[in-house]
Amino acid sequence: MSRLLEELSGPAVTRTLTADSVLVLPTGAIEHHGDHLPLATDRIMAEAVATAAVERAVARGVDAWLLHPLAYTKSDEHSWAPGTMWLSGETLMATLVDLGRSVAMTPARRLVFLNGHGGNVALLQVSLRTLRRRFGLQTFLMGFPVPAGDGEVGPDELGYGIHGGHGETSLMLHLRPDLVDLGRAERRVPDHLGAHPRIGFHSTPVIMGWLSNDFHPDGVIGDPTGADATHGAAIFETAVEESAHSLEEIARFDPVPPISRAAGEPTGDIPGGTRQA
Amino acid sequence: MSRLLEELSGPAVTRTLTADSVLVLPTGAIEHHGDHLPLATDRIMAEAVATAAVERAVARGVDAWLLHPLAYTKSDEHSWAPGTMWLSGETLMATLVDLGRSVAMTPARRLVFLNGHGGNVALLQVSLRTLRRRFGLQTFLMGFPVPAGDGEVGPDELGYGIHGGHGETSLMLHLRPDLVDLGRAERRVPDHLGAHPRIGFHSTPVIMGWLSNDFHPDGVIGDPTGADATHGAAIFETAVEESAHSLEEIARFDPVPPISRAAGEPTGDIPGGTRQA
Amino acid sequence: MSRLLEELSGPAVTRTLTADSVLVLPTGAIEHHGDHLPLATDRIMAEAVATAAVERAVARGVDAWLLHPLAYTKSDEHSWAPGTMWLSGETLMATLVDLGRSVAMTPARRLVFLNGHGGNVALLQVSLRTLRRRFGLQTFLMGFPVPAGDGEVGPDELGYGIHGGHGETSLMLHLRPDLVDLGRAERRVPDHLGAHPRIGFHSTPVIMGWLSNDFHPDGVIGDPTGADATHGAAIFETAVEESAHSLEEIARFDPVPPISRAAGEPTGDIPGGTRQA
Amino acid sequence: MSRLLEELSGPAVTRTLTADSVLVLPTGAIEHHGDHLPLATDRIMAEAVATAAVERAVARGVDAWLLHPLAYTKSDEHSWAPGTMWLSGETLMATLVDLGRSVAMTPARRLVFLNGHGGNVALLQVSLRTLRRRFGLQTFLMGFPVPAGDGEVGPDELGYGIHGGHGETSLMLHLRPDLVDLGRAERRVPDHLGAHPRIGFHSTPVIMGWLSNDFHPDGVIGDPTGADATHGAAIFETAVEESAHSLEEIARFDPVPPISRAAGEPTGDIPGGTRQA
Amino acid sequence: MSRLLEELSGPAVTRTLTADSVLVLPTGAIEHHGDHLPLATDRIMAEAVATAAVERAVARGVDAWLLHPLAYTKSDEHSWAPGTMWLSGETLMATLVDLGRSVAMTPARRLVFLNGHGGNVALLQVSLRTLRRRFGLQTFLMGFPVPAGDGEVGPDELGYGIHGGHGETSLMLHLRPDLVDLGRAERRVPDHLGAHPRIGFHSTPVIMGWLSNDFHPDGVIGDPTGADATHGAAIFETAVEESAHSLEEIARFDPVPPISRAAGEPTGDIPGGTRQA
Amino acid sequence: MSRLLEELSGPAVTRTLTADSVLVLPTGAIEHHGDHLPLATDRIMAEAVATAAVERAVARGVDAWLLHPLAYTKSDEHSWAPGTMWLSGETLMATLVDLGRSVAMTPARRLVFLNGHGGNVALLQVSLRTLRRRFGLQTFLMGFPVPAGDGEVGPDELGYGIHGGHGETSLMLHLRPDLVDLGRAERRVPDHLGAHPRIGFHSTPVIMGWLSNDFHPDGVIGDPTGADATHGAAIFETAVEESAHSLEEIARFDPVPPISRAAGEPTGDIPGGTRQA
Repeated sequence: MSRLLEELSGPAVTRTLTADSVLVLPTGAIEHHGDHLPLATDRIMAEAVATAAVERAVARGVDAWLLHPLAYTKSDEHSWAPGTMWLSGETLMATLVDLGRSVAMTPARRLVFLNGHGGNVALLQVSLRTLRRRFGLQTFLMGFPVPAGDGEVGPDELGYGIHGGHGETSLMLHLRPDLVDLGRAERRVPDHLGAHPRIGFHSTPVIMGWLSNDFHPDGVIGDPTGADATHGAAIFETAVEESAHSLEEIARFDPVPPISRAAGEPTGDIPGGTRQA
Repeated sequence: MSRLLEELSGPAVTRTLTADSVLVLPTGAIEHHGDHLPLATDRIMAEAVATAAVERAVARGVDAWLLHPLAYTKSDEHSWAPGTMWLSGETLMATLVDLGRSVAMTPARRLVFLNGHGGNVALLQVSLRTLRRRFGLQTFLMGFPVPAGDGEVGPDELGYGIHGGHGETSLMLHLRPDLVDLGRAERRVPDHLGAHPRIGFHSTPVIMGWLSNDFHPDGVIGDPTGADATHGAAIFETAVEESAHSLEEIARFDPVPPISRAAGEPTGDIPGGTRQA
Repeated sequence: MSRLLEELSGPAVTRTLTADSVLVLPTGAIEHHGDHLPLATDRIMAEAVATAAVERAVARGVDAWLLHPLAYTKSDEHSWAPGTMWLSGETLMATLVDLGRSVAMTPARRLVFLNGHGGNVALLQVSLRTLRRRFGLQTFLMGFPVPAGDGEVGPDELGYGIHGGHGETSLMLHLRPDLVDLGRAERRVPDHLGAHPRIGFHSTPVIMGWLSNDFHPDGVIGDPTGADATHGAAIFETAVEESAHSLEEIARFDPVPPISRAAGEPTGDIPGGTRQA
Repeated sequence: MSRLLEELSGPAVTRTLTADSVLVLPTGAIEHHGDHLPLATDRIMAEAVATAAVERAVARGVDAWLLHPLAYTKSDEHSWAPGTMWLSGETLMATLVDLGRSVAMTPARRLVFLNGHGGNVALLQVSLRTLRRRFGLQTFLMGFPVPAGDGEVGPDELGYGIHGGHGETSLMLHLRPDLVDLGRAERRVPDHLGAHPRIGFHSTPVIMGWLSNDFHPDGVIGDPTGADATHGAAIFETAVEESAHSLEEIARFDPVPPISRAAGEPTGDIPGGTRQA
Repeated sequence: MSRLLEELSGPAVTRTLTADSVLVLPTGAIEHHGDHLPLATDRIMAEAVATAAVERAVARGVDAWLLHPLAYTKSDEHSWAPGTMWLSGETLMATLVDLGRSVAMTPARRLVFLNGHGGNVALLQVSLRTLRRRFGLQTFLMGFPVPAGDGEVGPDELGYGIHGGHGETSLMLHLRPDLVDLGRAERRVPDHLGAHPRIGFHSTPVIMGWLSNDFHPDGVIGDPTGADATHGAAIFETAVEESAHSLEEIARFDPVPPISRAAGEPTGDIPGGTRQA
Repeated sequence: MSRLLEELSGPAVTRTLTADSVLVLPTGAIEHHGDHLPLATDRIMAEAVATAAVERAVARGVDAWLLHPLAYTKSDEHSWAPGTMWLSGETLMATLVDLGRSVAMTPARRLVFLNGHGGNVALLQVSLRTLRRRFGLQTFLMGFPVPAGDGEVGPDELGYGIHGGHGETSLMLHLRPDLVDLGRAERRVPDHLGAHPRIGFHSTPVIMGWLSNDFHPDGVIGDPTGADATHGAAIFETAVEESAHSLEEIARFDPVPPISRAAGEPTGDIPGGTRQA
């Protein structure tokens, strides 16, 4: 049976979904990834992982469903680069609110963003709370690790292999080798950032605001030159298995401790929540 | 060679596109279509027609490209129906503006919305001018006819077969028969509207504002019971051929009369021209 | 008795209107119409037609009322021309939503936009659904035909006499000859568009986004040189009679088939609908 | 010669206006004024005063022009009353910004709001600076006094005759006696407010936020019972004469001291100056 | 006991406040005030007056509380001057709406803006009604007079000592002499404005839109050269005493006449009013 | 010399700041923190750390300046709790954009958000890129660790001591013991979340959307019962020292590698660069 929710009819959605259903929205991007990778890189990765993870979770008993992916998202760090098709943060947030409102009309209460584009993470985090507060949904965000090369696996990218680097290129060599042109790949590791160990893209004491051409006019951050399909396959398998595990846990998640809840007490759902048009 | 623009790299977009390129954005919908059709009906139709029309136009020498489709659009007439995933008009307009701004960064100047959902038409028309004014793009909107049954071909739908009726169901039987459940189809022609011949959905002296459950709680408008895959195939072929012809004409369209234009005079493009309104 | 709703007191509105009342809002424009016509052309035409049509409909038993006209509307296709006073699409939509919200506070449920400016059509269509969905109003849009010259009546404008051309100029010669300066009229038919028969302003397979100076720097589209007051009078009479007929039909329109409706069932009205400020 | 700017053609605006022209926009309201006055009271007063004042100023040599009036404005204090047609503050501000942007395309630099509705004053004041900053216009706001009855002229309204009271009703008896129904007038002076002398509608140490039904469910504030057309005529004459004087001064106003300005130095105009804020 | 509401816990707010509590929000500004005064001038004055007035009102039995001040407000007239930290009108209004919504969640119903920056007055006035209408709060605006020098007290500023002039500089010499540099003060009275007696900043028949560098590039309007701490102390004492009196009156203000109100009738509060997110 | 930027005059800002100056904006919150902590907890912590860190960084040669703090921020997870004064995400983003635009008018190019409220993190991250892209500023976000009790230092909060728990309460006992009421503190550790190890507040594979009363109606998440001022002092010292180090690194940060940059090449600053998105 198809697990693409869009393939059901409207009445079938009402007949089929329950409060335990888990709806998964892949969020990708159509954006510049250097000259060796297609614009759709993040979209392709997110859809591939989400599709496989939903299938695996379903096989393990989770009532998971795939929503039609969001391809156009927040890529303003690459807005300087022709080919990038970017939504402003305001537009993406409005889209997420509209979709959350729509989901709240169905019996499902669990909505998961499975994200393949780093530039979306902060905004998606903001939206988690907005959708929980306004529509009473249980909302979740998950991504999947695409590790930077460390000198043992792949070239040493010094932790900066975040855009078009070894991991991403390897994963694409696994998923869509026809769209990768390694002959155009060049090392673009911002070595000089090592002089600022407290400042980084994430997980450092200081997070910086950056555009992808802040470090090199190519807009690539990492070293794709030694990318490898076998390594990409391993990244993919880990991403799928980890995501499937997460969906299993989401399916049984309940924020309110079971002991303290009275019978029949609502779980925070706000049916018909805040209607706003 | 792929004609999916998202499969190019960013630099390839700059190398490949020219002012004569025609970018085609399919716009569908994920919305209630009754119990016999999938939510994705409009998305599937728009993508199928656009893909085939671009291919055919390319074969005839047009430099046409397919943009990644917009699946979530303006379905507020079905917002009452669980399963409908709808953007507000404001959100869809913001999305179109953002995509237009992005397209204006490429060498292409011709942007076509190939639309498969009637609820989008008016807003897309508004956006044509906005994108022309703000970004200097040549903008175009085209759909494809999905005729109502007239008693000769299909049941007589009295001109009201506009949502889930004979034509749409037939087309889906051609494109994705696995997603059609004719056993759940019922006649839902709003016969009583015949008493108001001046008031209609379009092309009448008076256009009315309507929600899809204004006429019947099922939200279907038409008679799908006799839908037919062969008729659907004919609708499809006409849609593709007509669309391909339109793309050919768009490729050579120029609003300024050639006699009066001085050599090198711009064609109305406003490079970098984000005029805030 | 005055049929201008603004001439009633607030309490009189409550005493006088019913669910069968039909409120008519003329929507014009203050915009460049070439050097032979006043900026107010569209406003004058819309008000004249609406006033006469309401009067005629009332004489035939319709409880029709004229709302104070909207003079400033969406004229962004002429925003390049000094004298044009234009609202952005966002501003006009906000205005229409505010007025719809206000109308929903009265006993009336039927709101008609009688439009005299082509640049408003698409946005008004969008608003029809918004006002129906948010405020439960029955909403309608009607215009009136101002035919292009075809070589028999008037010069042959090739179907392009849409702005400042033969029909509009003739109608103004009938309504306000003091404001027409035929001595400044010149033929501005975009003959070259004939090479693109599939692309047009409306009713063609492809609708284009355009600005009024895309075809000629004058911003006139049509041939006003032979405009004629007698022809204008005929256009006016047709417009009034057609509009009056439409108002009669609107007055008895009900989207729900009478057989299937239970006694006392609401007609979709949402009293107090969506309050938003 | 007409002084209605909308009666000029677009090119005539460019030929006729100069930096010394003064454009006057009457701002009224369509709102509940009790059961003895029409909804259009403020609109009628503002247009009558503005029309006469422009005519008088022109006779004294000012190059003044009347813009088509704004009838629908910010009447949210009466939003509870059926018949009130109100714009939100956001919508009115957007309208003013759009009109200011339009005016800035003409040769004129002086824009005057001649306001007849108290509920608009604060928002209009905000807009003065916005239009000066964003479009470089010289902007002005003026109203006209409609005095409360003080026991000598009219009943003693204790300074609270601000909405539907003695002055306003008298002025309407002068301008449009056919629309006044004194038989429905009742005294609605909020005497009890005298216990709070520091708190008032304006010009007191404390300004309060109020809705027009805060003081009496009728929404009238004042005592219209003894209204008088002769007194109304005097109010009108004063309003026109004062307004004409103000227009004369506006016509020669220049914020920069003439001594310190170099020849040819701009006066603060920002041609094309849409600075987004 | 602290009268800073932010020093209470959340539950203490519910335990402590009542419908008679008066919440006071000081609104200042961080903006250019010439070279002799700090950017924080308006913020410092507003906070000092508000703190002392609340204390004095509490001593006289008013249940007054100080909200954490708003330092960044609407200073767009000084947006040209580096150092000015300004919110757009839209942003400040959104902030006031959000704070009003928050206050409406507490038992308190009386919210007072105690404003120290002239550029905020009009927008704060607009917000008074918005917060009353949307959240049912009783809303009030008060400032404090900082008189222009008149030749007897201070230099003759001709009524134009409104920004960085004698009064403001004197008050700052009293409150924070360490931040005043009189050596950099210069006379900047726009004497030439005397030729336009009907046009002014407020309380004149015509109000103009202005930027602070319209009159002199320094952006100072007044004559600070003879500012005096003793005079500043007198201004401060008057401001505090007047403000305390006003708070006393606000504490017992009730718009509805006591005779006409039924027992238990609500005072216009809209608990849970208009939820909007 | 004061390091509060608001204490400078406008011209002094221009004279004093350079492209190497580092402007630090503390961002706190006024929100429910349980019954044992004041609403201002996050504001107090952020200001105290920022003030001490700036002082220490200045002593080490950094040209650091403190901007007036933002007290009201995004606390929608506590919007259910009276006393919380929360800005919507849209309002806070608008505020940050306005302040970024203002900072871009000064010579400084480095703007740091020093944040004390977890609910702000994601939105501040979004704003980093917005301000970099639109105004060309170098933007940075830093917080300071307030560790959960782990059973060795403080009670074992299982990693969930994130709101009103051991660390925060200890830090407040150090900073403002007068505002802490340990007698009202109770253990509120959501032990049951341990059953979902993959789902958490941050740094887990899945991030959830949550409101602070999802886990307990008190809205406290952690165990404040054993909070300790000495431990709070240690947290504070670490926060200040770490923040000072970060400011030192920010002061010399440059994203563009020095070798590849041509002399005089801009560093990505976009003077006047308000690119509308």
